Amino acid sequence: MNQERLEKILIKLKERELKQMIISDPYAILYLTGRYIDPGERLLALYINESGGNKMFINNLFTVPEDLGVEKVRFDDTDDYLSLLCSCIQKGEPLGIDKNFPARFLLPVIAASGASDFVLSSVCVDEVRACKDEEEKEKMRAVSAINDKAMAKFRDLIREGVTEKEIASKMLDIYTSLGAEGYSFTPLIGFGPNCAKGHHEPDDTVLKEGDTVLFDVGCRKDNYCSDMTRTFFYKSVPSEKHREIYNLVRKANEAAEAILKPGVRLCDVDRAARQVIEEAGYGPNFTHRLGHFIGLEVHEFGDVSCVNEAVAEVGNIFSIEPGIYVDGELGVRIEDLVLITEDGCEILNSFCKDLDIVE
Amino acid sequence: MNQERLEKILIKLKERELKQMIISDPYAILYLTGRYIDPGERLLALYINESGGNKMFINNLFTVPEDLGVEKVRFDDTDDYLSLLCSCIQKGEPLGIDKNFPARFLLPVIAASGASDFVLSSVCVDEVRACKDEEEKEKMRAVSAINDKAMAKFRDLIREGVTEKEIASKMLDIYTSLGAEGYSFTPLIGFGPNCAKGHHEPDDTVLKEGDTVLFDVGCRKDNYCSDMTRTFFYKSVPSEKHREIYNLVRKANEAAEAILKPGVRLCDVDRAARQVIEEAGYGPNFTHRLGHFIGLEVHEFGDVSCVNEAVAEVGNIFSIEPGIYVDGELGVRIEDLVLITEDGCEILNSFCKDLDIVE
Repeated sequence: MNQERLEKILIKLKERELKQMIISDPYAILYLTGRYIDPGERLLALYINESGGNKMFINNLFTVPEDLGVEKVRFDDTDDYLSLLCSCIQKGEPLGIDKNFPARFLLPVIAASGASDFVLSSVCVDEVRACKDEEEKEKMRAVSAINDKAMAKFRDLIREGVTEKEIASKMLDIYTSLGAEGYSFTPLIGFGPNCAKGHHEPDDTVLKEGDTVLFDVGCRKDNYCSDMTRTFFYKSVPSEKHREIYNLVRKANEAAEAILKPGVRLCDVDRAARQVIEEAGYGPNFTHRLGHFIGLEVHEFGDVSCVNEAVAEVGNIFSIEPGIYVDGELGVRIEDLVLITEDGCEILNSFCKDLDIVE
Repeated sequence: MNQERLEKILIKLKERELKQMIISDPYAILYLTGRYIDPGERLLALYINESGGNKMFINNLFTVPEDLGVEKVRFDDTDDYLSLLCSCIQKGEPLGIDKNFPARFLLPVIAASGASDFVLSSVCVDEVRACKDEEEKEKMRAVSAINDKAMAKFRDLIREGVTEKEIASKMLDIYTSLGAEGYSFTPLIGFGPNCAKGHHEPDDTVLKEGDTVLFDVGCRKDNYCSDMTRTFFYKSVPSEKHREIYNLVRKANEAAEAILKPGVRLCDVDRAARQVIEEAGYGPNFTHRLGHFIGLEVHEFGDVSCVNEAVAEVGNIFSIEPGIYVDGELGVRIEDLVLITEDGCEILNSFCKDLDIVE
């Protein structure tokens, strides 16, 4: 159990007048214990309490290291594990509940635990997770460096007659050869008009001259996720409009990155990028938020959008990914991960953003 | 909305003195509406009530056919969709809740809906789903027939020098060439001692003479899942013990299938297979339940295990999959899907179960 992280969570709980919580999100449990368990339909719960008595409830089906740094309560499917869980809950006190805790566990806990109230409190964990500590920063730098190297190799796959699927089929081996453990998400690959589709899956589309080639890709190493997008042109830039769109997206990406520092509102970061695109008349073509937080999961709590008035804090890591999409023609997106530092930001991706015509 | 299925669920609810329920399981919603939506973190809920007023709550992000056969309530992320949901719930009456309904929706519904009680009632849906109707039986036959054909092609991949990974890499194309839409689960492939490991992933193990070769595989078509296991020998059967184990597993599989008919207790089906294995002294080597229900999902509500005293009903489809595993040596499992009929059972897999030495 990472005591430093636990302490920070307990402080957040106290701010909300909570002394105890059930954490069930497997990634939150990984964050605290260093151990990822996918419990499937089974109960996995970490009970924490400001006065100690922390316990982790794990089915005997799952193997865990002897020394998790927290008392383990092991059980079989046939045991009354919800009674075991209820018996450690402090009665007469409100209980924090994880946002995804399912009804089949929550309703019995409400009926039998004796807690005075049940309060959604995942945000106490999520806010702590949003500010990466030094160990996490190092891992995010390392996995992003792999993503930069992989992007260079993906660029080499752009050649006459290739299909999206063929490129897709080679990416995993490239990642693993560079030391990654796998994808952080299924790669998004688009040629030409396919780049303008929100959730296009790689298909048998054959590359042709003048196409934009969009790679939105990421890998996982040491439990942390990278995520980057670059957009190339194949052989030529078909029109001034194509060139203008590319340069606008790049300018929007850099305008947002330029104002990053602790205290800046995330909605203002979104605005900085969106304004560049709106002023050129492409506002309706930038159809999504500017970015999302990332770490143990590709999408974590926190986003960079027009409605998020929260401010950037030291240790935040999120994506900056403006895009312009023209149906039936092209799509351009340029995405980096950024880390908020004491006096600005560190851009975790260094792969070139110049307009790049691949021959 | 499939009215016949809905009526059956409402009857089950009534037996539990419930008039209304929130269904949130995407597969249960698929079962009723014919439409699968993966809502991710967003609300997806089908509210049903014995006196009508059924409504489906779907975020505007998801496209759905105009005619779902149920009133749709569409909303954006920024709308107060939980108030919309609460406003249709009948006050002063207990409300059935889906077992996986997450705390972030359930706690607000408890606070604001005015229902008199909140009762886990997924079982009312699951019990109906466990008895397949004619349309479902046809789809399960069709997807199992593909699995039989695929197994013959997988068998052809067994050859000198091949690795588990190489075989794994060819399976998806074989399935799609036979008309399947994809896997129903990631194939389990093991050579020799790897067959004895519960959750072995295909690796670079090279096939060698005398190995058992275990394929536990399934595909998906028209939303339904197949699942079958066969175990082959490569070039020779290394010992009488190997041969004995194979024949025991086959005998156990057939002993269970022989007693299947409506009314037989599922624990007795498990017993029929287990007894064959226990009497030969391999009881401790048969480490799992005999089978699981299957349909829209690979593992559905219902299992064939020593603790399940429920009886088989017409329309049930489940697996019969005894196995014997000897650490460091070999593993044998033989699995069919079976459909309970009026007077016995229909075995949905016809792939040969004779001891098969692949040259």
